[in-house]
Amino acid sequence: MKFLFINGVNLNMTGIREKGVYGTETLEEINKYIAEKLSGDECEFYQSNIEGEICSAIQNAKADAIILNAGAFTHYSYAIRDAIASIKIPVVEVHMSNVHAREEFRRNSVLTPVCKGEILGFGKNSYVLAAESFKL
Amino acid sequence: MKFLFINGVNLNMTGIREKGVYGTETLEEINKYIAEKLSGDECEFYQSNIEGEICSAIQNAKADAIILNAGAFTHYSYAIRDAIASIKIPVVEVHMSNVHAREEFRRNSVLTPVCKGEILGFGKNSYVLAAESFKL
Amino acid sequence: MKFLFINGVNLNMTGIREKGVYGTETLEEINKYIAEKLSGDECEFYQSNIEGEICSAIQNAKADAIILNAGAFTHYSYAIRDAIASIKIPVVEVHMSNVHAREEFRRNSVLTPVCKGEILGFGKNSYVLAAESFKL
Amino acid sequence: MKFLFINGVNLNMTGIREKGVYGTETLEEINKYIAEKLSGDECEFYQSNIEGEICSAIQNAKADAIILNAGAFTHYSYAIRDAIASIKIPVVEVHMSNVHAREEFRRNSVLTPVCKGEILGFGKNSYVLAAESFKL
Amino acid sequence: MKFLFINGVNLNMTGIREKGVYGTETLEEINKYIAEKLSGDECEFYQSNIEGEICSAIQNAKADAIILNAGAFTHYSYAIRDAIASIKIPVVEVHMSNVHAREEFRRNSVLTPVCKGEILGFGKNSYVLAAESFKL
Amino acid sequence: MKFLFINGVNLNMTGIREKGVYGTETLEEINKYIAEKLSGDECEFYQSNIEGEICSAIQNAKADAIILNAGAFTHYSYAIRDAIASIKIPVVEVHMSNVHAREEFRRNSVLTPVCKGEILGFGKNSYVLAAESFKL
Amino acid sequence: MKFLFINGVNLNMTGIREKGVYGTETLEEINKYIAEKLSGDECEFYQSNIEGEICSAIQNAKADAIILNAGAFTHYSYAIRDAIASIKIPVVEVHMSNVHAREEFRRNSVLTPVCKGEILGFGKNSYVLAAESFKL
Amino acid sequence: MKFLFINGVNLNMTGIREKGVYGTETLEEINKYIAEKLSGDECEFYQSNIEGEICSAIQNAKADAIILNAGAFTHYSYAIRDAIASIKIPVVEVHMSNVHAREEFRRNSVLTPVCKGEILGFGKNSYVLAAESFKL
Amino acid sequence: MKFLFINGVNLNMTGIREKGVYGTETLEEINKYIAEKLSGDECEFYQSNIEGEICSAIQNAKADAIILNAGAFTHYSYAIRDAIASIKIPVVEVHMSNVHAREEFRRNSVLTPVCKGEILGFGKNSYVLAAESFKL
Amino acid sequence: MKFLFINGVNLNMTGIREKGVYGTETLEEINKYIAEKLSGDECEFYQSNIEGEICSAIQNAKADAIILNAGAFTHYSYAIRDAIASIKIPVVEVHMSNVHAREEFRRNSVLTPVCKGEILGFGKNSYVLAAESFKL
Amino acid sequence: MKFLFINGVNLNMTGIREKGVYGTETLEEINKYIAEKLSGDECEFYQSNIEGEICSAIQNAKADAIILNAGAFTHYSYAIRDAIASIKIPVVEVHMSNVHAREEFRRNSVLTPVCKGEILGFGKNSYVLAAESFKL
Amino acid sequence: MKFLFINGVNLNMTGIREKGVYGTETLEEINKYIAEKLSGDECEFYQSNIEGEICSAIQNAKADAIILNAGAFTHYSYAIRDAIASIKIPVVEVHMSNVHAREEFRRNSVLTPVCKGEILGFGKNSYVLAAESFKL
Repeated sequence: MKFLFINGVNLNMTGIREKGVYGTETLEEINKYIAEKLSGDECEFYQSNIEGEICSAIQNAKADAIILNAGAFTHYSYAIRDAIASIKIPVVEVHMSNVHAREEFRRNSVLTPVCKGEILGFGKNSYVLAAESFKL
Repeated sequence: MKFLFINGVNLNMTGIREKGVYGTETLEEINKYIAEKLSGDECEFYQSNIEGEICSAIQNAKADAIILNAGAFTHYSYAIRDAIASIKIPVVEVHMSNVHAREEFRRNSVLTPVCKGEILGFGKNSYVLAAESFKL
Repeated sequence: MKFLFINGVNLNMTGIREKGVYGTETLEEINKYIAEKLSGDECEFYQSNIEGEICSAIQNAKADAIILNAGAFTHYSYAIRDAIASIKIPVVEVHMSNVHAREEFRRNSVLTPVCKGEILGFGKNSYVLAAESFKL
Repeated sequence: MKFLFINGVNLNMTGIREKGVYGTETLEEINKYIAEKLSGDECEFYQSNIEGEICSAIQNAKADAIILNAGAFTHYSYAIRDAIASIKIPVVEVHMSNVHAREEFRRNSVLTPVCKGEILGFGKNSYVLAAESFKL
Repeated sequence: MKFLFINGVNLNMTGIREKGVYGTETLEEINKYIAEKLSGDECEFYQSNIEGEICSAIQNAKADAIILNAGAFTHYSYAIRDAIASIKIPVVEVHMSNVHAREEFRRNSVLTPVCKGEILGFGKNSYVLAAESFKL
Repeated sequence: MKFLFINGVNLNMTGIREKGVYGTETLEEINKYIAEKLSGDECEFYQSNIEGEICSAIQNAKADAIILNAGAFTHYSYAIRDAIASIKIPVVEVHMSNVHAREEFRRNSVLTPVCKGEILGFGKNSYVLAAESFKL
Repeated sequence: MKFLFINGVNLNMTGIREKGVYGTETLEEINKYIAEKLSGDECEFYQSNIEGEICSAIQNAKADAIILNAGAFTHYSYAIRDAIASIKIPVVEVHMSNVHAREEFRRNSVLTPVCKGEILGFGKNSYVLAAESFKL
Repeated sequence: MKFLFINGVNLNMTGIREKGVYGTETLEEINKYIAEKLSGDECEFYQSNIEGEICSAIQNAKADAIILNAGAFTHYSYAIRDAIASIKIPVVEVHMSNVHAREEFRRNSVLTPVCKGEILGFGKNSYVLAAESFKL
Repeated sequence: MKFLFINGVNLNMTGIREKGVYGTETLEEINKYIAEKLSGDECEFYQSNIEGEICSAIQNAKADAIILNAGAFTHYSYAIRDAIASIKIPVVEVHMSNVHAREEFRRNSVLTPVCKGEILGFGKNSYVLAAESFKL
Repeated sequence: MKFLFINGVNLNMTGIREKGVYGTETLEEINKYIAEKLSGDECEFYQSNIEGEICSAIQNAKADAIILNAGAFTHYSYAIRDAIASIKIPVVEVHMSNVHAREEFRRNSVLTPVCKGEILGFGKNSYVLAAESFKL
Repeated sequence: MKFLFINGVNLNMTGIREKGVYGTETLEEINKYIAEKLSGDECEFYQSNIEGEICSAIQNAKADAIILNAGAFTHYSYAIRDAIASIKIPVVEVHMSNVHAREEFRRNSVLTPVCKGEILGFGKNSYVLAAESFKL
Repeated sequence: MKFLFINGVNLNMTGIREKGVYGTETLEEINKYIAEKLSGDECEFYQSNIEGEICSAIQNAKADAIILNAGAFTHYSYAIRDAIASIKIPVVEVHMSNVHAREEFRRNSVLTPVCKGEILGFGKNSYVLAAESFKL
């Protein structure tokens, strides 16, 4: 299968920022880990800090499934929500941390209602599990 | 008169996405239809998925009036609101669908208070009526 | 086409009341203007201060379309909402002023979800544009 | 016993409007059905689209009990609530449909706190059951 | 001076209804009392259960001041609010009981912001004091 | 017909507790009264203080209809709500008192949206009327 | 009769502060005006910026009635509310301006539910009318 | 590893109830599927309709991890939340359906803040993925 | 005197769970401490994780007073509230920790309005003080 | 031990005011009762109607513990809250009545989160129990 | 220039209380620091725990500018707000800590809307910067 | 020191837009003023209308401190909030106008909790004061 992993705003800072929450691996290292775990599949990785570019990446996706960690956009981007709703490719929402155990504003995702499912709290394995979900 | 039609995020997917809501015509076809209806006027069309580019387009507009369908940005972009407030050209907010008959979050527009008026629910004709409003 | 223009409570005071908001033309003068603009169509005008009479007028309408400015009833009359839902004739909600730029309570319309569309902010031309919408 | 059945706004459209919700019998047919079911009692039927007339009908009632379906007024008419509170005749609130299974705004009745009881969801039999309640 | 006293819905039941709250004098007796107290002035009395008729009475008032007890309409009638705002004659809102010491919903008046002032809690003397306010 | 009457938490205290609200008859006496009123039908009675046992009773019901007075569970048991939604037997929600005339928290029922209808305020006759509703 | 007029925080600035709202007369001049209007009665005047001193003044009042303008304390002082509730002397709440036509926070008074009545919007005459209310 | 799968209220109705949402497999069949998928691990399955029994099962768990689908208890059982917080074994919250795409009340989980993570929307595979998360 | 100490859900985990909050003594040790402190009185101890069993224990209590720590049920169990209201024996609500200094949801108790009083924040001595309150 | 008992606004009216709620003993009599009950300890009593003086009394306290009944300040005085937080002496919040069984506004205490504990509902014994809590 | 520095409730405890938040310098030391930093200006310092005295100090201020740290009064004292609005001298609101990074209730200031500006988060330098703002 | 001044959306319109609020100086002129005021320091200026570019600018900042005026993004950009939290360089939030004296939506900043401090209301000097704060 072909998977497109989309990471939203500030996720390029993973491993640098707030290490207590996200660990010390960089996004590049995480992506490498994911690709190895899914060595039989095709993995494409995309990251952007710009909400509209995330929307475009979703609109133009060529993949069997999208694994999306939208970062802080999760909590207010109806634009990304509409982009997800505009395509037929299934999207799984993921978060590395347990967002429900952090600040109150992180408890609401405007994206989940239009996604296929959601996986959160498993660090970099949230991405892997989301991909595995299509292969069970 | 010269009209600038600005379409926001995901409107480039019109005719492709959620056809039950938006019909099967593409944005290009809709723009062509508008231009024909307003054949005696000058029509400029702009679309972007990026909120800040919409702001810039509003700031730099050279037109007698702006017809704005901001898509999902309608519901939270105080940035676009401030851009509208920063210019003297009148802006009419339009929506193709009746946004009040859809999800709850679509019932609030942060843009309308600084627009001249609002037209919604008439499909592609929402754009045409907005332009006609300046010619009555 | 045959249009029925229904004006709700206090709109008989237009041109008399709050001229800063509504201008100085009376409702009669506005109706005359509308009829002239739509000279090829049949225009019927109705006004009442009584919510229940508005409901009855909607129930008994003989027209191709209803153009409704419900005045203050817009914000709480579930009775009028149900009357609109009980008929097959399309109803367009109109307001002369930009109600979203006024008091907070005017930002909510209980009627829009059951109307075909909404046009607001264009003075007396809100009525004309609503009628034109059926002829595009 | 003597029963006064009061139907509020838009209930004169029953059997015509939204048949999926209310069925195809007209209010007249429903009233006939009720009168037959209660053939040993005296039944008076009143309907008005005007809130104030409903209040007057309640104030002037000559009956052992009032069966009231206030329609959309149910959700905001503190006027009808006060009219109920101003008389000694017991009032039972009825609805033909299960209003709690429809739009959110229909979940709140401002009338129930001053009524004797409430019966909803049994179609035309809601009226009959309300009358029967006084005869057990 | 000429005063127009407008009483809204259910106030025709005063002295009959809920005597614990309103006392045992009828509206007619109260009006007579007021007229005697204001024997040097011209007093006109109007009562209606119909919201729209209250609006019309306000629109058509011929008086130096209006003393308005809108009853339950006080709490939701934006129609009456707009009627008050549409005229130049000053309106004083009155209530016989202390509405703030009763049910929660009676604590909000949508009318006060457009009235000259408000007097509540003095029984029939609320009307008299409102009139006196213009003569100090 | 066969009816299953389910009474929830604390209803075993009826006739003992808060007699001002519920009267002085015990649940056993009430059940006997109901059975007599419905002497031509089969009546089964079940009571439990345990929410999960109520759910099981609903899941395992063998009856043409369930008459359910869930007591305080009415206001928060999404578990019972889901149990009702999981079966095909129609369920009517009943309350002996007018719950809308008591504490604020009793005004919301999480069960009604998935029930066939609701009857409240008629004391022990609320049960009888609910059963009668299936026989009209 | 003996009246105690209590003025709360900042009312010592009347005539100095925000003249557009309160006019140009000082509190001393207003008190003198009141005393003249009520020349047949005994008038005591008290002002304090300190909430607790207002409470003490209410507790220790020797008068037939208290006329209270609590200023900004009106909106949050449950302390003053309890002081009013602790005495038997009737208290009338007054405001010179129409507080409902100003900022949103001024629309809620925590005091009114325990006062006899409320008079607002008549400038210095609000005090006079409150006193007159006891003499009708 | 040893996994304890706990299913809450009404999940014993899976495959019977609301097949559009949950499919046609029974809980027994689903458990068998899970056990097969995790054939190298020890799987224990527990279901109860009783909130307190779920708490006890969590308190007494002998396993490396708990996979918990609490059903409707998810939305209000602070009791289960505290039970989770009282043990050291990690708990993963799962849901078969995308609860965020259903009724509003299902969008809030009181359990997630004290769980390790959450997986939802993958049908019976939500359970499998949760178990797999411990083996990556 | 005879005291019945009722402990609700998860309190059987005291001394095991979250020791930072509750200390290291087990419930058995705490009960022993209480019994010693109240050696002149009769002490009965009951604990259950099941809400309905707590209700039954309250209904069937044979004691001069009940000391109730309902655990998490405190925050949503209207069932327990009604059980307390259904008996004549006074109930004192206790908590070992200062629940107001913890998560937001712990700040609301649905039980307190129907209890005699509440004591919180004194560890195991909260129980002792509650009992002592009957002996002063 | 040395205890400082601080009573806030209007508590000097105890025994005079609202006897139905607080009984007929004066504060002086209550203090005498407390001192007798705690005859082996040193008791200091302080009362003020002025919020800031309460803050100063807390700041300057020389005692092993403070027993604080802040009266109406309980519900809004973040000033007193900060004063409590600024000292190391433990503070126990007390109320004579069950504040949760009275008006809605009395259900929220802004002080409890920074106190050691809270005792309410035991009349004058609330003070005694609070002192006893330090001696167990 | 002449500056008046007003410190509200509990700020006399600075350097003593909650040193983690406010540091270890006393208010006297801070004032001395400020005076040194502004050695070319005249500095007056005032502190009170009593809200009404703060109001009086504002009313009577003789200075070119007021620098106000109202402490906890910031969050609810409409009295101080009105005092600020009653004078012509500009007032700058300051806080030593970043109040937005602390408890939720500290995020709302009722004072800022009537101040010239606000400076927060710079410890004792918040005062200095506020004074400097008048000299740029 | 080296300062990075970041200006968000629409601030490039300063001096052009809404001159009543922001004055007539352009952003370029303001930047020049700032640089002159801070002539001993290194000043870098960045402006973008694109939220994600602001995030990137924050992530990549090479400076001793960032002075951030995010414009309308202030009120909803959790993305910028997370960018601030991801770096170690201190960020001071500034606004030229007193945002608390304008529209309601401008009263909430999602950024302040993760900034060092906030300065607002001093026009272009807000920037200068923010920089000065690091040099005291």
